[in-house]
Amino acid sequence: MKKNKSPEKGRINPRLKQISAKFRKKRPAAKEFAEKILAGDTAWLGRAITLVESTAPEDMALAEKILESVLPHSGNSYRIGITGVPGAGKSTFIDRLGNELIERGHKVAVLAIDPSSALNKGSILGDKTRMSNLASRPEAFIRPSPGGNFSGGVARKTREAIILCEAAGYDRILVETVGVGQSEFYARYITDMLILLKLPGAGDELQGIKRGIMEMADMILINKADSIMQEEARKAERIFRSALQYFTFRPTDRIWVKAISSFSDPDIRLTVDKIEEFLENLRRSGEWENQRREQLEFWFEEHLHDLFRRFLRHNSELRQKTLQEGLAVKNLQKTPFGAAREVWEFFLNKLKSD
Amino acid sequence: MKKNKSPEKGRINPRLKQISAKFRKKRPAAKEFAEKILAGDTAWLGRAITLVESTAPEDMALAEKILESVLPHSGNSYRIGITGVPGAGKSTFIDRLGNELIERGHKVAVLAIDPSSALNKGSILGDKTRMSNLASRPEAFIRPSPGGNFSGGVARKTREAIILCEAAGYDRILVETVGVGQSEFYARYITDMLILLKLPGAGDELQGIKRGIMEMADMILINKADSIMQEEARKAERIFRSALQYFTFRPTDRIWVKAISSFSDPDIRLTVDKIEEFLENLRRSGEWENQRREQLEFWFEEHLHDLFRRFLRHNSELRQKTLQEGLAVKNLQKTPFGAAREVWEFFLNKLKSD
Repeated sequence: MKKNKSPEKGRINPRLKQISAKFRKKRPAAKEFAEKILAGDTAWLGRAITLVESTAPEDMALAEKILESVLPHSGNSYRIGITGVPGAGKSTFIDRLGNELIERGHKVAVLAIDPSSALNKGSILGDKTRMSNLASRPEAFIRPSPGGNFSGGVARKTREAIILCEAAGYDRILVETVGVGQSEFYARYITDMLILLKLPGAGDELQGIKRGIMEMADMILINKADSIMQEEARKAERIFRSALQYFTFRPTDRIWVKAISSFSDPDIRLTVDKIEEFLENLRRSGEWENQRREQLEFWFEEHLHDLFRRFLRHNSELRQKTLQEGLAVKNLQKTPFGAAREVWEFFLNKLKSD
Repeated sequence: MKKNKSPEKGRINPRLKQISAKFRKKRPAAKEFAEKILAGDTAWLGRAITLVESTAPEDMALAEKILESVLPHSGNSYRIGITGVPGAGKSTFIDRLGNELIERGHKVAVLAIDPSSALNKGSILGDKTRMSNLASRPEAFIRPSPGGNFSGGVARKTREAIILCEAAGYDRILVETVGVGQSEFYARYITDMLILLKLPGAGDELQGIKRGIMEMADMILINKADSIMQEEARKAERIFRSALQYFTFRPTDRIWVKAISSFSDPDIRLTVDKIEEFLENLRRSGEWENQRREQLEFWFEEHLHDLFRRFLRHNSELRQKTLQEGLAVKNLQKTPFGAAREVWEFFLNKLKSD
């Protein structure tokens, strides 16, 4: 009953909840999950991701055990983030990119950081028909984006889904993000490289791309450089390439800027060459390893603070106290520090008296 | 004794510690502090900021009381962030900007987010001689930058110093940051607008400006546009202005880009006109109010999590446990989540058994 009162309830996609409830009846052990996932069973992989996405305490506990079991078999993949505004052609690009990677002998998993929110209207990854080529291939695993609102929690769950996919043998993980809100900040902490898809034409800059994302891109592709758009795309390519040096701290020769068409096989092949080259260089230089370890430390801290946050939220007295103090801060009646101290002391006393 | 063992000890500037120790002997009450500050007494203002910067528990408690007392008299200022790489001419610019603001009837306080770290070699604000004009005026209050390493904690203390300055009647607060690490992220949460100072010439982009800062700038000034640099500065102005639309989500007509010389009175007057215009528009549109409230909420959460962090750090058993689990995560022996849960449960048990 307590679970139903949780303020996080809204984050659970009703469809996922249903699957989860059905599945919970005959709950297998973590060991069975791990074995099936390591054997590459996609049905079990999908179920395990559902557990990871759940906010029910019993699901979370099981998910954690599964993750611990498969952890030694994970990590051996390249994790590639793909970002761009809605309409930039991410689905088609991922479809073609995934196919080319499979042609080269890889197993490809497609995940998303962003939930199917009002903003992207659930169309981004929710519909596998938008990646029809890739969806039909046994070497590909496509996971629809999680429901609810975006938060660090969603990115965290995506990170855990990546671990499960890697354990199931997927060695190229494509992570889609629409690049709004904080999602691109988190993208840095779950991927090895970030590809920014831009549209040719002047309107794009104002279409909702998050400021700051340009800084983080390891590759900028001006997509839809076909037929009538071709000239505009080449122009955008030139502008981006020449402007790049003013907006990034990194050596700009490492950032590939190119106008491409997702429907051109040579373009896609060249793009995959460049992606693999970038990642191989990252690995050889030791940066890949460093990045991964930094990411782990980041998530350890995030998890720890999330447990604290969760505790405050799930206890009705503490939630009440936090809301009340937050309101006093907003109304300029208390300093943020004074209010925080009151919540903290209330929390300590509550724990001691329980 | 416990205080001396604190891992935060390193953050205290020895000079500040000395002042603090001397001052602690005859410790006045928060009420006396508040009265003196509200009367505009700069010696007491300086002492109160020292308390805010201290990490000694008794100093923090007193600082909190002072802040609560003066809070109703704070907030009525414009808070202007100024960022740029070392050598961009921030000190001279702030000196001239401050003077012009005083000429227009304002009282000006100058603070810094960044500590005088190895990176900026303590020269940024540590030496008042670099702002000789401003330092000689009774309408100005210049606070050297705090010692130690940069962290969110330093930005938080800067925010509290702002509140104290406002209570003392300063209505234009200039906050300097060197824009490295996370400081510009925090600059967003303590200022109303951010001015980016750039150097003319191609080398500047690689001199250490943090990627992402360009996105946040409300005004970009190409400084040192004098004599031999003039042509290069005008060129940089054109490049920045035309490239701006590709790198920010906001309407670019709101972002003033201009090559200026800090030694040109007309340039400084025009700059102040533009700053005041920007801030007046912000206030009229209601964005100023919204930004401030969002900032307060942000700091309330930050403070709360910092109290948790501090607790983990100050308790030797908990610190030991956290380090040990963090190491297991880095060595891929545990998931970040599993390790975080162990620390969390250890923490809960510790509290209950105490």
